[in-house]
Amino acid sequence: MAKKYVYFFGDGKAEGNKDMKNLLGGKGANLAEMTNLNIPVPAGFTILTEVCTEYYKNNEKYPEGLIEQVKENLKKVEKCMNARFGDPTNPLLVSVRSGARVSMPGMMDTVLNIGLNDRSIKGLINQTKNEKFAYDSYRRFIQMYGDVVLGIEHNKFEKILEKARKRKNVRHEKDLDVEDLKEIVLEYKELVKKETGSPFPDDPEDQLWGAIGAVFKSWNNKRAINYRKINNIPDDWGTAVNVQAMVYGNMGNDSATGVAFTRDPATGESRFYGEFLLNAQGEDVVAGIRTPLPINLVSKKVDSELSLEEMMPEVYRELEGIRNKLEKHYKDLQDIEFTIQKGKLWMLQTRSGKRTGFAALRIAVEMVEEGLIDEKTAITRVEPQHIIHLLAPVFDPREKEKALKEGRFLAKGLNAGPGAASGKIVFNPDRAEILNGKGEKVILVRIETSPEDIHGMKAAEGILTSRGGMTSHAALVARGMGKSCVVGCSDLDINYDEKIVTVNNKILKEGDYISIDGTTGEVIDGKILTKDSEILQVLIKKTMKEEDSKIYQQFKKFFTWVDKYRTMKIRTNADTPEDASNALVFGAEGIGLCRTEHMFFDEDRIDTMREMILAENTEGRKKALSKLLPMQREDFIKIFRVMNGLPVTIRTLDPPLHEFLPHKDVEIEKLAQKTGVPFETLKSKVESLKEANPMLGHRGCRLGIVYPEITEMQAQAIFEAAVAVKKEGVKVIPEVMIPLVGDVKELKKQKEIVVRKAEEIMKRENEKIDYLVGTMIEIPRAALTADKIAEEAEFFSFGTNDLTQTTFGISRDDAAHFLPFYMREGLLKNDPFETLDFEGVGQLLKLGVERGRKTKNNLKIGICGEHGGDPETVKFCFRIGLNYVSCSPFRVPVARLAAAQENIVEK
Amino acid sequence: MAKKYVYFFGDGKAEGNKDMKNLLGGKGANLAEMTNLNIPVPAGFTILTEVCTEYYKNNEKYPEGLIEQVKENLKKVEKCMNARFGDPTNPLLVSVRSGARVSMPGMMDTVLNIGLNDRSIKGLINQTKNEKFAYDSYRRFIQMYGDVVLGIEHNKFEKILEKARKRKNVRHEKDLDVEDLKEIVLEYKELVKKETGSPFPDDPEDQLWGAIGAVFKSWNNKRAINYRKINNIPDDWGTAVNVQAMVYGNMGNDSATGVAFTRDPATGESRFYGEFLLNAQGEDVVAGIRTPLPINLVSKKVDSELSLEEMMPEVYRELEGIRNKLEKHYKDLQDIEFTIQKGKLWMLQTRSGKRTGFAALRIAVEMVEEGLIDEKTAITRVEPQHIIHLLAPVFDPREKEKALKEGRFLAKGLNAGPGAASGKIVFNPDRAEILNGKGEKVILVRIETSPEDIHGMKAAEGILTSRGGMTSHAALVARGMGKSCVVGCSDLDINYDEKIVTVNNKILKEGDYISIDGTTGEVIDGKILTKDSEILQVLIKKTMKEEDSKIYQQFKKFFTWVDKYRTMKIRTNADTPEDASNALVFGAEGIGLCRTEHMFFDEDRIDTMREMILAENTEGRKKALSKLLPMQREDFIKIFRVMNGLPVTIRTLDPPLHEFLPHKDVEIEKLAQKTGVPFETLKSKVESLKEANPMLGHRGCRLGIVYPEITEMQAQAIFEAAVAVKKEGVKVIPEVMIPLVGDVKELKKQKEIVVRKAEEIMKRENEKIDYLVGTMIEIPRAALTADKIAEEAEFFSFGTNDLTQTTFGISRDDAAHFLPFYMREGLLKNDPFETLDFEGVGQLLKLGVERGRKTKNNLKIGICGEHGGDPETVKFCFRIGLNYVSCSPFRVPVARLAAAQENIVEK
Repeated sequence: MAKKYVYFFGDGKAEGNKDMKNLLGGKGANLAEMTNLNIPVPAGFTILTEVCTEYYKNNEKYPEGLIEQVKENLKKVEKCMNARFGDPTNPLLVSVRSGARVSMPGMMDTVLNIGLNDRSIKGLINQTKNEKFAYDSYRRFIQMYGDVVLGIEHNKFEKILEKARKRKNVRHEKDLDVEDLKEIVLEYKELVKKETGSPFPDDPEDQLWGAIGAVFKSWNNKRAINYRKINNIPDDWGTAVNVQAMVYGNMGNDSATGVAFTRDPATGESRFYGEFLLNAQGEDVVAGIRTPLPINLVSKKVDSELSLEEMMPEVYRELEGIRNKLEKHYKDLQDIEFTIQKGKLWMLQTRSGKRTGFAALRIAVEMVEEGLIDEKTAITRVEPQHIIHLLAPVFDPREKEKALKEGRFLAKGLNAGPGAASGKIVFNPDRAEILNGKGEKVILVRIETSPEDIHGMKAAEGILTSRGGMTSHAALVARGMGKSCVVGCSDLDINYDEKIVTVNNKILKEGDYISIDGTTGEVIDGKILTKDSEILQVLIKKTMKEEDSKIYQQFKKFFTWVDKYRTMKIRTNADTPEDASNALVFGAEGIGLCRTEHMFFDEDRIDTMREMILAENTEGRKKALSKLLPMQREDFIKIFRVMNGLPVTIRTLDPPLHEFLPHKDVEIEKLAQKTGVPFETLKSKVESLKEANPMLGHRGCRLGIVYPEITEMQAQAIFEAAVAVKKEGVKVIPEVMIPLVGDVKELKKQKEIVVRKAEEIMKRENEKIDYLVGTMIEIPRAALTADKIAEEAEFFSFGTNDLTQTTFGISRDDAAHFLPFYMREGLLKNDPFETLDFEGVGQLLKLGVERGRKTKNNLKIGICGEHGGDPETVKFCFRIGLNYVSCSPFRVPVARLAAAQENIVEK
Repeated sequence: MAKKYVYFFGDGKAEGNKDMKNLLGGKGANLAEMTNLNIPVPAGFTILTEVCTEYYKNNEKYPEGLIEQVKENLKKVEKCMNARFGDPTNPLLVSVRSGARVSMPGMMDTVLNIGLNDRSIKGLINQTKNEKFAYDSYRRFIQMYGDVVLGIEHNKFEKILEKARKRKNVRHEKDLDVEDLKEIVLEYKELVKKETGSPFPDDPEDQLWGAIGAVFKSWNNKRAINYRKINNIPDDWGTAVNVQAMVYGNMGNDSATGVAFTRDPATGESRFYGEFLLNAQGEDVVAGIRTPLPINLVSKKVDSELSLEEMMPEVYRELEGIRNKLEKHYKDLQDIEFTIQKGKLWMLQTRSGKRTGFAALRIAVEMVEEGLIDEKTAITRVEPQHIIHLLAPVFDPREKEKALKEGRFLAKGLNAGPGAASGKIVFNPDRAEILNGKGEKVILVRIETSPEDIHGMKAAEGILTSRGGMTSHAALVARGMGKSCVVGCSDLDINYDEKIVTVNNKILKEGDYISIDGTTGEVIDGKILTKDSEILQVLIKKTMKEEDSKIYQQFKKFFTWVDKYRTMKIRTNADTPEDASNALVFGAEGIGLCRTEHMFFDEDRIDTMREMILAENTEGRKKALSKLLPMQREDFIKIFRVMNGLPVTIRTLDPPLHEFLPHKDVEIEKLAQKTGVPFETLKSKVESLKEANPMLGHRGCRLGIVYPEITEMQAQAIFEAAVAVKKEGVKVIPEVMIPLVGDVKELKKQKEIVVRKAEEIMKRENEKIDYLVGTMIEIPRAALTADKIAEEAEFFSFGTNDLTQTTFGISRDDAAHFLPFYMREGLLKNDPFETLDFEGVGQLLKLGVERGRKTKNNLKIGICGEHGGDPETVKFCFRIGLNYVSCSPFRVPVARLAAAQENIVEK
């Protein structure tokens, strides 16, 4: 006996159900489910996704038995719908629709009105008493079938239609009369014959199989393949095909079609929300030619509109009943499609509804409160990405709409730091600071940014760059600061000298207003009003009280659940007391990465740093370092105070020293004047420190090994600070982290210095500090020899930024030349600097964990790369057994949620 | 019962033997062996190396039972030597010497004449009837013991000695008389008391234990620790201690001391070769104050010298007998030490003798011919390093000696390319070519070199740079060319503009003669005559006939053995027909790496290459590529012809495109004039291609992926060339290699292009070519995902240069800032760019092999990094199962030997 390839649904009984999405596709599974729930669904059947897979495996042939099964099921549909396929008096018409496991909106084909021909149209006229409707359906059918199944260019049909409109001198085809439509049908048929060499197929069975074949083929059209690449959908999933009896919302003013959400998908409010069109087919709603009406009174925005609730109160009540049934059954926001045919309601689709971050949070919290779902389910209902939206400032929606209508859209870049920002264009970071000091809002517009621009970035509302990717300096720092940021906007031509930026022939000057939306990447000319997120207003800005913000209260409640089901710790990457304190309110449980180098870029420090670098010998270096010591100590004191009771991981100096030196002759000259060192000497020192590949150069622990006095000073600053705050009653847990270790000997040497200094200071000050000395695992050799490194390390922290660079052999700074191409061409699924490459880099993480813990059973292991804020990476880290992830302050709640979700999945 | 810690030797019977070096140390094992061979050896005993290890483990305490065992064995020595330790009439005196498993010459301490005190000296006088000798020995003893055991500064003793000489007004202490010596002994003792607070120990047992302790302690002195670091000797091996009866070569003119080699260690000639001093102690020979005499007539260089053979014919005959016995027994060149005491010959040491490359080869070959050893043993007797010496040109030894005596030594750099070279200083590669064209010999002196200097490097006798390490561009290219090369000679201050080089205040101008020894790193002022190695004269230069060169004949014979026992293939890295043909005569079995990019640097090609790079679109690129196509095809045709019958692995374009562009404004201006492209456009293109980390940038297959037309052109050139030579009757086996693959998808994309082109051309030309498409494994991700990559790859070739850079996160070009420091401080044993890092990078190789062969059982795997010419790496590659290594032409014999040796070891 042949395998069962076809599942029936109809008349309150279906062979499938909602849990069979892999076989039936999302649409088919939910049609079956609704049928079983006794919701009115036009009868039909689903051809399994397997058939698609076998079809392609088998040189586009159908498996044995399929034809018979389709025939049998069609009979069942005829019985349910009390009509016959191709019948001249009472014809059954069907639709053929795709339906993959996950929604691929608009990517595959659909054919409607199958079963119409010159004979059955008579039956349709007979059934509907509406000749115009019948011929309009016939015309639509031939056009759709001609296009989708027979591959005839769409606009060839449109031309015929246009000609008819011109003949009749009307603007829209709905104004054509029956005779016109009959004429068009004839012309369409001629076109088909001319184009294909054969007459239009008038056998309903041929029509049906043509449509099924077209839907299967559309699984492998270019659009669909691309969509799958982008969305990581395997090619071998295949699509199901749904054959379903047609119902019509365009049979007159007792017919309608609409879409609705069981709750408001924008705000999450629990009210039935939707739109409909009277006397229309589904495609008319999508086409957007007519303005839909609200389904009920509460959705009404304009009093003059008439709602479905008012027009067809009974049908509306039935629909509302179905809404309640579906929500109770699915226990989630549903996105539904319905058609009313001559006063009878038919449901055509239900699926989980897309929603904004605000809605996701509200629905999740309220459904728990309503007893619909439990806390764990609520946690899985909010996407980590939603949290980012919740925290970002937003444009006033009306203002933005206005701007776009006025043609003020300029360009689109990469959406690097979420949120909207608007301000005056400034090209220079100093100027940004000055203007900000005067209370001006500015957008810092740069070709790219560097650590020397940080004060300007801080002062700006948002950052816009013409170069760089999602992990460029600008993007990283902006995300860390929670600033709106659009990068790699290559349409911008920035001229620092003339202080202008040209974009598509439009010239903007410094001081002109510009607006950027870091959530979408849009760049818009002029000013648009923005608002802080409420959560930020409550938590960080303190401009709103907790009790005044419902969304904040829900946020807070939601995260108590998140933390209940979470086991992995979330720390933050923070270099300043401000960062640390922001991270704390977002729930950080420690600092996982405190980069000491950023502390040296302040104007009053960089000169001393340069003095250290330019010193001729150890003596000179020590002298300069002794000036830096009190500054570093003060930095640590402040951070320790903020982090009272929580661990603080401090990384010793990491970047190559030339990063601290000026590179342009003018700047070197300035430094020469300042220091009294001759220009030539300075210049040659700068030259001698230049590196061919600074990422792989003299940096990380290689600095502290060649210049142990640097590590010594840093250790001294850390432990003197620790002792000082301990004496104030602060609980201090310093963890000293040695960067770029490749061999255990390096760690050993650096650890010796740290331990010696720590013991010295504790003895001198008569205080005991609990501290750890550990290492970053950020080059492949460290992961490969993690068992040895663990002999010295008291913790590991994966530096996945550098580990990704070295494992791939890709410089983040240079990747823009080819990575975008790679992603476009499907050579890479994700930007590996955004979501960890589990297949390659992930292996090294796993190896590092296994080997490290082989040596030290309970070795504490975390991650502190930018990946720590990426939800998928956080989940991976949980799966491989990390103790914590560390991310930028604004990503802390994101990571908390992702970690909790993975906990729940595991159980 | 306590463990046995002490092994006795004496009177023809020893408890140890030569195979017990791990326990007895090298010296002790061979003293035992000689004793067992009935060779006259002063009796003594060896304290095991284990004792040293336990001593350090146990807080510098001796293990239980040691003291008793030393006492017992000392009794045995007394019995053998018929004398008693500390006896006032017939005293036994002993020496205490270190002796580790491997020789650590001069690193540890020795104490002689132990057992002397104010009582036993009387016995010594009585025994020898030589009071002056006795007091001289006493003085030496106190001085040595005071220095080595008691830690009193050496020059404090020297001052006393000097005072005595002044008092007596003599130049040398041998001219002091007994009374003077007695006085000195008293003063020495006073010094000891003053310095240590205690009198000089006069109990012989105390003296003995003091000396033993001092020798054990010297295992951990700074020199010894450093030596072990440099020579990879584990710290826990420990040293043995040899306590042995003293014999004296300074008891009069019937006494003597000497060292000898059983064959000539410089040439390998089978003649007894050695030197001796009459009436002298061993330390006098080492001190080099007196000129030693030849031991026999054949060693005499000056007629006036009297040889030992002439002076003491009977003793000499006995010594010669021992020489024969030792050589037959050890079957290897022996380095021996002897002392003649009052006409009686004593042997103090025998060990395998160090030898030059010439001697190593000759001895190995001749010992096989003599039936002493078999071929396999011969193969293990020649070090791979020896082969490099055999191929290098040499300075005329007398000329070099003269130059050094004249103070013409200038500086020392890294010995990057072996061999001697002498010529006129030239700073500019073009100028080097011009002068070379005129028949001048030149040394190219550069701060560092780049691919654009290659023509100048070719034209030069040798290359000298002030920057760069052992794997800098200069070093790599020079080794590839087999040129003498000294790099990183930082004492040089090179000024291109003034065309001078300053070194230690000496100024040399362009055109001045300079000489460099790439085998030693020496840089010498002026001209020194050099000679080509004979093997090169025969094989490459054809300036000597095979039958005229004995060393060549031995070389040839030796390598027939090597190839008999070798299974791993050796290929070569060759980019030109000349390289390929040189490699062939050295035994290369294919090309493992043919870099196509070097072909684009020729002056007539680089412009077309630049045209390609500067093209605005695919069209323009294709146009330029079509001009490069015939050139590339011609290159491949020539190489295929040379390599008839052997595989040729061709790597597609690898370096970032900016390497082909000029970077200085003047050069850009020149190019602008040439191409008609505006300067600004060119300049901005050059800028836009600049990369922060070019090593990790847009290069390797990333070029061919973004610009598939490049790979297309290269594939076309390869297969059109292959077809062309096949039509000539050449057997051609092309292997196309895709560089820098990190994911199988990259390889798949590139392979598709290559296969498509290959099939297209084969079809068009109606020829069938056997070819493979494979990949380099040169970034960690490739090794980690080798199982997947092997699905597409038909072979793997490990690019260990880049793999080392990425696995360590170290840029080779920048490593000079810290790698030398790392090596000095023992953080790294070897330069990982010279000898593969087995612990880290080696893991990735093993992983790559395992995973690659998991997918494809018989996957061909090789290595083509510079490491392929490093003997230790070659052996590692054999062990992990590679099919071949590929190295520069001049390293091919080195690799052949190393591969054969590891084969033999494995069996």
